[in-house]
Amino acid sequence: MKSRALVLEKQRELSLREIDLPYRLGPDDVRVRIHTVGICGSDVHYYTHGRIGPFVVREPMVLGHEASGVVTEVGGNVSHLRVGERVCMEPGIPDLTSRAARLGVYNVDPGVRFWATPPVHGCLTPEVIHPAAFTFALPDSVSFAEGAMVEPFAIGMQAVIKARMQPGDVCVVTGAGPIGLMVALAALAGGASEVLVSDLVEEKLAIAARYDGIIPVNVSRESLREVIDRRCGEDWGADVVFEASGSHRVYDEVLACVRPAGVVVLVGMPIEKVTFDIVSAQAKELRIETVFRYANVYDRAIELIASGKVDLKPLISETFDFEQSIAAFERAASARPNDVKLQITLDA
Amino acid sequence: MKSRALVLEKQRELSLREIDLPYRLGPDDVRVRIHTVGICGSDVHYYTHGRIGPFVVREPMVLGHEASGVVTEVGGNVSHLRVGERVCMEPGIPDLTSRAARLGVYNVDPGVRFWATPPVHGCLTPEVIHPAAFTFALPDSVSFAEGAMVEPFAIGMQAVIKARMQPGDVCVVTGAGPIGLMVALAALAGGASEVLVSDLVEEKLAIAARYDGIIPVNVSRESLREVIDRRCGEDWGADVVFEASGSHRVYDEVLACVRPAGVVVLVGMPIEKVTFDIVSAQAKELRIETVFRYANVYDRAIELIASGKVDLKPLISETFDFEQSIAAFERAASARPNDVKLQITLDA
Amino acid sequence: MKSRALVLEKQRELSLREIDLPYRLGPDDVRVRIHTVGICGSDVHYYTHGRIGPFVVREPMVLGHEASGVVTEVGGNVSHLRVGERVCMEPGIPDLTSRAARLGVYNVDPGVRFWATPPVHGCLTPEVIHPAAFTFALPDSVSFAEGAMVEPFAIGMQAVIKARMQPGDVCVVTGAGPIGLMVALAALAGGASEVLVSDLVEEKLAIAARYDGIIPVNVSRESLREVIDRRCGEDWGADVVFEASGSHRVYDEVLACVRPAGVVVLVGMPIEKVTFDIVSAQAKELRIETVFRYANVYDRAIELIASGKVDLKPLISETFDFEQSIAAFERAASARPNDVKLQITLDA
Amino acid sequence: MKSRALVLEKQRELSLREIDLPYRLGPDDVRVRIHTVGICGSDVHYYTHGRIGPFVVREPMVLGHEASGVVTEVGGNVSHLRVGERVCMEPGIPDLTSRAARLGVYNVDPGVRFWATPPVHGCLTPEVIHPAAFTFALPDSVSFAEGAMVEPFAIGMQAVIKARMQPGDVCVVTGAGPIGLMVALAALAGGASEVLVSDLVEEKLAIAARYDGIIPVNVSRESLREVIDRRCGEDWGADVVFEASGSHRVYDEVLACVRPAGVVVLVGMPIEKVTFDIVSAQAKELRIETVFRYANVYDRAIELIASGKVDLKPLISETFDFEQSIAAFERAASARPNDVKLQITLDA
Repeated sequence: MKSRALVLEKQRELSLREIDLPYRLGPDDVRVRIHTVGICGSDVHYYTHGRIGPFVVREPMVLGHEASGVVTEVGGNVSHLRVGERVCMEPGIPDLTSRAARLGVYNVDPGVRFWATPPVHGCLTPEVIHPAAFTFALPDSVSFAEGAMVEPFAIGMQAVIKARMQPGDVCVVTGAGPIGLMVALAALAGGASEVLVSDLVEEKLAIAARYDGIIPVNVSRESLREVIDRRCGEDWGADVVFEASGSHRVYDEVLACVRPAGVVVLVGMPIEKVTFDIVSAQAKELRIETVFRYANVYDRAIELIASGKVDLKPLISETFDFEQSIAAFERAASARPNDVKLQITLDA
Repeated sequence: MKSRALVLEKQRELSLREIDLPYRLGPDDVRVRIHTVGICGSDVHYYTHGRIGPFVVREPMVLGHEASGVVTEVGGNVSHLRVGERVCMEPGIPDLTSRAARLGVYNVDPGVRFWATPPVHGCLTPEVIHPAAFTFALPDSVSFAEGAMVEPFAIGMQAVIKARMQPGDVCVVTGAGPIGLMVALAALAGGASEVLVSDLVEEKLAIAARYDGIIPVNVSRESLREVIDRRCGEDWGADVVFEASGSHRVYDEVLACVRPAGVVVLVGMPIEKVTFDIVSAQAKELRIETVFRYANVYDRAIELIASGKVDLKPLISETFDFEQSIAAFERAASARPNDVKLQITLDA
Repeated sequence: MKSRALVLEKQRELSLREIDLPYRLGPDDVRVRIHTVGICGSDVHYYTHGRIGPFVVREPMVLGHEASGVVTEVGGNVSHLRVGERVCMEPGIPDLTSRAARLGVYNVDPGVRFWATPPVHGCLTPEVIHPAAFTFALPDSVSFAEGAMVEPFAIGMQAVIKARMQPGDVCVVTGAGPIGLMVALAALAGGASEVLVSDLVEEKLAIAARYDGIIPVNVSRESLREVIDRRCGEDWGADVVFEASGSHRVYDEVLACVRPAGVVVLVGMPIEKVTFDIVSAQAKELRIETVFRYANVYDRAIELIASGKVDLKPLISETFDFEQSIAAFERAASARPNDVKLQITLDA
Repeated sequence: MKSRALVLEKQRELSLREIDLPYRLGPDDVRVRIHTVGICGSDVHYYTHGRIGPFVVREPMVLGHEASGVVTEVGGNVSHLRVGERVCMEPGIPDLTSRAARLGVYNVDPGVRFWATPPVHGCLTPEVIHPAAFTFALPDSVSFAEGAMVEPFAIGMQAVIKARMQPGDVCVVTGAGPIGLMVALAALAGGASEVLVSDLVEEKLAIAARYDGIIPVNVSRESLREVIDRRCGEDWGADVVFEASGSHRVYDEVLACVRPAGVVVLVGMPIEKVTFDIVSAQAKELRIETVFRYANVYDRAIELIASGKVDLKPLISETFDFEQSIAAFERAASARPNDVKLQITLDA
């Protein structure tokens, strides 16, 4: 199947061109006409660095993994989706027979194939084939733009589910980037009474502060620990701290801000190993959870968006046509502090 | 200590009179001037029936256990509360050295002493002594009326915490009485995308329906299971069903409405044993949780009210002066379908 | 594929005859030469009653679902099993794309196909085709006879996993039949300091009592609650009570014997609805878990047998040749109190 | 109350002398004649270094916190213990009214007073006063020597409870010192099918290897990861890895050995911050638990010892008279690889 696609030829070289995508519709698959694709930090990182850790772009690869669209054909076994249905897709395709998948943690199946993670092609192309089991109908109240936001929001949901929050928890999110915001919104939806979001960049905090329940803390001007002390008492702390900055400098503060027997969720991925104070974590007997993508959260993420409990629309900073895809990536690579999410539409 | 109090002399006989309350301020206690007391169904039940199960009113007993007030004196060991602070109180006083209390489940300490549960006096009296550990400061944004609502809301919180909800859960609450409403609001605060509340009485459902996220289902007119089928699919169901009616007729429907591997939380207390379909519960491998009062939820309940995520004010139907207490109980005993919560103020 | 098999023609009529089994080896499957098959109470119940609840034998059906054997062929995608490998099989085949399976609870997939549950054929036939994902290698230290016991033991494992036991728990199992014994052994392996097993039949209790850590309680002679009182104190109780009798008379005692904030696991399947005391369960704020077969326990069950921590060999009461299968079922239907597990060997 | 006691005067200076211990029996307390006290690594560390992290020995302090004895007097409120009863004691005394204690995690109450942690005196003295709530009766089958081992074993229990193990888990313990052994034995009691214990010192591994179910791995001779690969498969791993060495070099291996979605429990306390590979932990979406002493495990630890499921007796290397206490500490400070636990008897 020849398709036009946004292709990362190699580090720093993008083309919008025809490429051969060897898709075949199997009995458990659907064919989807792509409508909207969001640009993720990882897409940009492959563009600017040509790799993420052990994943190296060695062959031309289609970018994009945050997508919504319309079903145009369904395989013979598919009963829960119909042609014409508006959908969004989980970009990871696990081996359902694997041990991890049978346990319900298909995200950590070592054999998972994930869109736009080398050598697997992504979805910045007008049509994809996808397993129906990982394709989710969008209610009328959820737009294509929001549908393409389900993927990054799912990471926030996964973080909150890992935290096993209780209603009324006081939460902290360190880092007000796109993922930090997703975590903060998921925490509010998941029971937080309040979420303190910390960052050094005022513009990012200003976007966070638009949401009821989010309290911005500019750590260039005040100490997060002191804010927590005033809020929670000096020998207590936040119930859950979500680390979403990936900065190697933040971990001591994370440990200082959480309460005894509290929870730390590590979402941000630091570039290198970090220096970590195990004894401080032990002295509070913390539980530390880590997050790798998500599993079994798309349906509940869509429910929350459809019900209006989570509003992602203010986070869509600008939308580009497919033909402007390369410009969109240049803009994303420029990392404007006001930009949260840039999207590309293919099906205008 | 002689005090004026609302005394249940025996079944169907209330007096507003002086009574001797042998309170002494210990080093871990606070003295509280009572401001507002809500009337609970159990208060009314002691009044109309003279007993609840094994708890029989044999001696005159002060009623009331949903209270807010102002601290007027603190014991020598108390550091987290000050004179003049506005507070609400957990009405159960456990033995902190008990096995249950050490485990963190002080609500099931067999030795717990609970206000207005015979033979323990309640709080419909101008002043009480209470352990500081079970007395909670109210932020400025929480009124005395709301403070006196923390107790019934805490039951909803306990139910939601027992459910171990995940954000985006679709929930059902059977029964739109005061406790059903508290559970529904706690479920929304705790992550539900939507809560279907079922009842036979339109007035009660109308009150529930004022809240965003609550969908009323009048089961005199439509089948709850059919509503769920349309909402969740015929071979799926609600993630969590909270039973809050106590009606012996509801249990089959509860089991029918919950999804495979879902959760049922039994909050309503049926008067007699019920006929229960264990095999149906097993076929879905359900988890069934039960609720007995609450433990460790007051602080988080107050957080949610203070932050505006939970609004209990619309549920306060009418407020009476202390001198009208007996009339207030008559009104409560008349069970008007529009009445959710009646309160009495002592400190006007 | 024509095969000789033990066929239940209809209620009370068994044949050992040729039957057409339309098996085809798919790429994710293995072909297994059956060695040993255990007879389960459900096999016997289909024989004697022709149905279990909604599952009715309408067509001739091969019986048997507790099996071990040897791999004789592997499908193209199968990498973790080799020809010649000794194995046992999970008898339920779920739809891995289903919502339940993706969640890791494939046992409650409404579309699961389970051996010897009408209309699905069982494994009392010399050769079967089975998904490799549900076929498990047996270490050398685990015999075929033990391999065919993994299935009933898996139910005990599931019950214990649902209980979320902690090491040192004091447990009760009501009912000393085969499933009760499996639960008791799993509880001991899973951390119980002691398991009290109750029954009315001395022979069954005598078999249970052979195991260190099991304390038999003959409830025709002494009160289980009184034994618990002496053991755990009058206002406490067992940490976990596993109900494995299915008797409608046992539920009050189950609730009486468990401690406040304890756990009840409902394993036994009563024939009809039972009378259940919800308020008593609430007064202790119990968690009630139910069990439906098992998911993700075969590998860990095999580990425990292989390591010697669980010894199932004493529970194999007698072994029959395949040609004696009908006699074996007659013996099973006669329900001798000394019989725990009867097995049939096909590959002598 | 003047008492003879083993007093740490300052770093490297011990005396066996009279000291004034201002104990008063309160209504919730018991008086205990001490029988046996074990020497813990922390006692030795205070002796050799005069401090552990922020806890500095500034005044003479009685050492010892692993104790058993006999009740000689009970306070007025105490009902579950009698004079003459053999007991062991939890050495930490929390404020039961604290937030942490009400939550059931009294071990992380910032106000806890712990024996032999400056400035709190320990129990190497013939008589102590202790809260009855933290004093536990020993069954006849548990000796004083074993009773004094409950404290270190409780750390192993806490680690296993934090892990939330399932029966059949394959576990790893890194470090075969006293705490590593306690963790390994608790893991076996708590459901492990097998525990691989790694260390560099053959003598320590030889002691571990005496227990059925423990597999020693000498990491000076073979790679733990390779042993795990052979045991669990190359893309899987151990279900739970307990880090009990505190060595800063072990953390990469810990992360390498655990399976996807597995658990790491950090028990060992490294002297300094460690270099930690957060991304590797995330790629497997690990849960990381930390351990600080224990809460609510003494009773269940005693159950396991009493039932014979856990045998600590082989770990008692030598027993000294009280008058030889200083020699006992010298021996402990010499760290012979064959020594697991040294004990001192006061009540011969």
